[in-house]
Amino acid sequence: MTKLDFDIINQFDNVGNEIYKLIEELFPICRSITGNGVRKSLKIIQNQIPIQIKEVPSGEKVYDWEIPKEWNIDNAYIKNSKGEKIVDFQKSNLHVISYSKPINGKFTLEELKKHLHSLPEYPEQIPYLTSYYNEDWGFCISDKQLKNLQNDEYEVKIDSELKNGSLTYGELVIPGKSEERILLSCYICHPSMCNDNLTGVTLLTLLAKYLKDKELEYTYHFLFIPETIGAITWLSQNENVVSKIKCGLVATCLGDSGISTYKKTKNGNSIIDQIVKKVLDESGSKFKIVDFFPSGSDERQFSSLGFDLEIGSLMKTMYGEFSEYHTSADNLEFINANSLHDSFKKYLNVILILENKKIYRNLNPKCEPQLGKRGIYRLIGSQKNEDLDELAILWVLNMSDGINSLLDISERSGLNFLQIKKASQTLFEKNLLELV
Amino acid sequence: MTKLDFDIINQFDNVGNEIYKLIEELFPICRSITGNGVRKSLKIIQNQIPIQIKEVPSGEKVYDWEIPKEWNIDNAYIKNSKGEKIVDFQKSNLHVISYSKPINGKFTLEELKKHLHSLPEYPEQIPYLTSYYNEDWGFCISDKQLKNLQNDEYEVKIDSELKNGSLTYGELVIPGKSEERILLSCYICHPSMCNDNLTGVTLLTLLAKYLKDKELEYTYHFLFIPETIGAITWLSQNENVVSKIKCGLVATCLGDSGISTYKKTKNGNSIIDQIVKKVLDESGSKFKIVDFFPSGSDERQFSSLGFDLEIGSLMKTMYGEFSEYHTSADNLEFINANSLHDSFKKYLNVILILENKKIYRNLNPKCEPQLGKRGIYRLIGSQKNEDLDELAILWVLNMSDGINSLLDISERSGLNFLQIKKASQTLFEKNLLELV
Amino acid sequence: MTKLDFDIINQFDNVGNEIYKLIEELFPICRSITGNGVRKSLKIIQNQIPIQIKEVPSGEKVYDWEIPKEWNIDNAYIKNSKGEKIVDFQKSNLHVISYSKPINGKFTLEELKKHLHSLPEYPEQIPYLTSYYNEDWGFCISDKQLKNLQNDEYEVKIDSELKNGSLTYGELVIPGKSEERILLSCYICHPSMCNDNLTGVTLLTLLAKYLKDKELEYTYHFLFIPETIGAITWLSQNENVVSKIKCGLVATCLGDSGISTYKKTKNGNSIIDQIVKKVLDESGSKFKIVDFFPSGSDERQFSSLGFDLEIGSLMKTMYGEFSEYHTSADNLEFINANSLHDSFKKYLNVILILENKKIYRNLNPKCEPQLGKRGIYRLIGSQKNEDLDELAILWVLNMSDGINSLLDISERSGLNFLQIKKASQTLFEKNLLELV
Repeated sequence: MTKLDFDIINQFDNVGNEIYKLIEELFPICRSITGNGVRKSLKIIQNQIPIQIKEVPSGEKVYDWEIPKEWNIDNAYIKNSKGEKIVDFQKSNLHVISYSKPINGKFTLEELKKHLHSLPEYPEQIPYLTSYYNEDWGFCISDKQLKNLQNDEYEVKIDSELKNGSLTYGELVIPGKSEERILLSCYICHPSMCNDNLTGVTLLTLLAKYLKDKELEYTYHFLFIPETIGAITWLSQNENVVSKIKCGLVATCLGDSGISTYKKTKNGNSIIDQIVKKVLDESGSKFKIVDFFPSGSDERQFSSLGFDLEIGSLMKTMYGEFSEYHTSADNLEFINANSLHDSFKKYLNVILILENKKIYRNLNPKCEPQLGKRGIYRLIGSQKNEDLDELAILWVLNMSDGINSLLDISERSGLNFLQIKKASQTLFEKNLLELV
Repeated sequence: MTKLDFDIINQFDNVGNEIYKLIEELFPICRSITGNGVRKSLKIIQNQIPIQIKEVPSGEKVYDWEIPKEWNIDNAYIKNSKGEKIVDFQKSNLHVISYSKPINGKFTLEELKKHLHSLPEYPEQIPYLTSYYNEDWGFCISDKQLKNLQNDEYEVKIDSELKNGSLTYGELVIPGKSEERILLSCYICHPSMCNDNLTGVTLLTLLAKYLKDKELEYTYHFLFIPETIGAITWLSQNENVVSKIKCGLVATCLGDSGISTYKKTKNGNSIIDQIVKKVLDESGSKFKIVDFFPSGSDERQFSSLGFDLEIGSLMKTMYGEFSEYHTSADNLEFINANSLHDSFKKYLNVILILENKKIYRNLNPKCEPQLGKRGIYRLIGSQKNEDLDELAILWVLNMSDGINSLLDISERSGLNFLQIKKASQTLFEKNLLELV
Repeated sequence: MTKLDFDIINQFDNVGNEIYKLIEELFPICRSITGNGVRKSLKIIQNQIPIQIKEVPSGEKVYDWEIPKEWNIDNAYIKNSKGEKIVDFQKSNLHVISYSKPINGKFTLEELKKHLHSLPEYPEQIPYLTSYYNEDWGFCISDKQLKNLQNDEYEVKIDSELKNGSLTYGELVIPGKSEERILLSCYICHPSMCNDNLTGVTLLTLLAKYLKDKELEYTYHFLFIPETIGAITWLSQNENVVSKIKCGLVATCLGDSGISTYKKTKNGNSIIDQIVKKVLDESGSKFKIVDFFPSGSDERQFSSLGFDLEIGSLMKTMYGEFSEYHTSADNLEFINANSLHDSFKKYLNVILILENKKIYRNLNPKCEPQLGKRGIYRLIGSQKNEDLDELAILWVLNMSDGINSLLDISERSGLNFLQIKKASQTLFEKNLLELV
């Protein structure tokens, strides 16, 4: 096992491409909140990291909810009276409303239209819709196609199955020195869309792959779950773990070319908020911070009153804020390896700061120690020693009272966390600090 | 008795005109801090609402002060040597300094000028002056008239009377479920001026008229008092009531065409400050918030150190900030029914929020409850249900911990109070909340 | 002994010139952290105020440091092969690196250059350098001269002496009613430079000269010490005094023509921060406030973790922020009497507020007292009494609860401290306040 070190950040030149490749592999699969698409996706992730795959049977109670029937689909289409497939599930799995019950019949255009959905604002895009808890069926098509449909008799087939089965999710715990856990969660229930949320799934996969062989301070808990029902299921079956969760992030929308967005925890000033803000500040790029709100992804459940976990969400452009969101336009062209690389580095930096925000006590608290005689101060007054970061050294001495962490010192001084960490390392080696 | 409900806000299309009409009736009367003008004005208010009229005898001690002699005036004028009335109390009661002692004599211009007051900055306006605690006499005239006065012998008459009598004020208590009181105070001592303060007097009259038949949570305590001495008198004689006062407003300057102004309580972040700020935010119109300062109207006394009551003042343009202030230009043309209507609605909204800022406890605090099966969530994911305000529902669930009120939730979410109230109502009816 | 009064602020028309004259007298002396230059400078200060001059022997331990050898220098030069003095200590004592060991020899240009220092950014200026804790020698010259030096054999002489002796500093304690001390510190170790820091030395000298015969609330502790080692020495030998220090200022860079700059205490909102901010606000001129940072002058030591004293620094342009800093350009032309006068007045105002920020209790807390019958309110309502500052009177009454000081009242009201002080004086004389 090797130590986790800041230098490592430069070892990931290719990580954007690796993530992108994994997304390409996962993209064609038709996932939903249950079913074989989820199982197949989790198997692909298992090729990278040793996740445990869990199955929870249909009908099981999870708080106010119960695990729904399992849904699988083989095929679906709409044919016109000439027998031409005008809508074909094989071309895009977004064409079928997720959890559509099986159907096989003939419909006039008027009858059919009650089951057709489109997006007039984006006439080229197929929308993504679901009907998990209300048995129904339907197709999603582009508004352009909808408007061109002729009066005709249409043959409609959905070859799906809704039956007792199970809900499937993946989980990986990477142990650290402390029992305290960092929750890193993503949702694996969306069919062929990239930014939302194959980017979150694959970024966490590669992050876990890297962390699993490292000496860690905290225990890292990765979740690959169906959104909402998966979070509710996991929480209801893991209440004993909840009290150990220090903080965490929901990973989503990490590959588009927009600026980074951070959705704060409900608390708004928790340790994860401070760290992500620091990482974004130090990135040198523009970013956006939005307050918590109780819709969105699984932070809704993690931050519900009964848990109030400190879970934020670090993204590129936030869900709902890009026009490709929840449509067929959220495809492999919409994301890119550079953005994925940048998002990965930010997640890694968050973890590096988490792991390194130590607390020291200055062993020489009255006045400054004589740094010059220890070789850590310029020899000639008024000349700058380019090798030493004297101001960082002075800040660490001035604030290391056994309470302030290196993160606090970095925040107050406005100096980079890494500068502060290096200064503390130097002072520690010179026996001027002790670790608290 | 009917319940006080938000829908009611639309029942008041004509209230601006009603208030204006009442101002027209009160305008001609010569009021002061004591005397028959106050009594006559309170009788007119009594035609609308069952105020009690109280009399406190001259000479009675009220804290550091004592009730002054009662002042009444029948007539006053200045005649030139041709016998022409050049200044006539019958034309404007502002012409005589309030509490002028009786006088009857002949004066040269030079002698007379010592008793003449004008406003050089506003040469057309007659100023409003008082001399309650220093026996004197004087006339107020326009600066234009003052500058045109010729050397002449002038006959001066003030037919007034200063004698032991009493100080008169009006009071109305509308009981609610709680003993806690909301103080709504205005001053009835100013003679023929409209914005300051017949607008406050009449707006509170109509507000009390509406509230008196409603089921109320709080007890509403209305005061119609002479400024300063009236507040001091009431406080000194009602110390037992003071501890029951939760918060309140001094109503003044509510009919000009300026934007709303709120003068905060001394505390600056009390419940009434939060509510008024919310009402102004939601009004969609510009407004101005000013910090407390210890001059102004009766909030000076209510906020004195010995009481420190949480009393703000919701106005249109603040006293002292309009050029018509304390002059004959503060007349029936200076105010209008639209502004009075708007001010009335704001006062009513303040009371609606006060009455409805309930506290609930989420009975299903772990994760969200399944709203779909209760019919309060869209059936097809990713489609918006226009009838339901899902975000408001999620905020109420997320924050109803038995401590946060609906007002707190409205503030944090940035959603309208009414949206939040409706969401809580829906959830309460579905047994997802309990009232604390 | 006379009382310290605000009126005094106008007695100092000539103080800028007096300070400037004293700077002229001190300017030519070659000072360092030890040696006869410091002794001679302190004697000149002793002509103005009765400072005690202390000597601490070389080798004595002071916390992590020890008192260095004493350094004295008589002469130094560089001659070219024609015997011309091309660098001469008699012309500028900045030419020799402070604490240079004695040297006498011949050098090629190449050898000599290892010991020559210049400032390429400011080619006309001689830099100021020191080598206190690393035995070495060197010359500082303008970059222009450095670039013009020819290949030649140079005769180099530094007639200096490094031997056991002592560190010298000056101290003056002006007692007040309270044992609580206000620390006013400056450093006397810089050779011929004006803004940094003969301005600090002389301003404090004149301030002490004025204060020493006054009745004072606090005890004022003046230090004239060598920077860093002097502060460390004084702290290590005066730990018993440290707990009595309420707050203080380091005086430096007070004579250039820039705007005032205040470097806050580490706490950032201590009493001295509030007062200096008030003085700057009321000055009517632009100013700049910078947060504490642990480099700079002796606030580094006073604010080290073991002491955490509340010491700020009130300057004109801050050290390091002007291009003349630590060079021969920080000379008598760089500073002026007007700026010194302005800085002196600000220091005096700080002390005036410190001495006068009393706390009163309103003896008539329920409602306002009747000010009119006591002659401290306008007689005719709505007319302004120009002599009385009624708003200040109302603020003092409203906030004098035995906890808020006059400074708090001045801050909250936005009124000048002097207005508030005068209002409190009036109310105190009328028996409406008691002193807490």
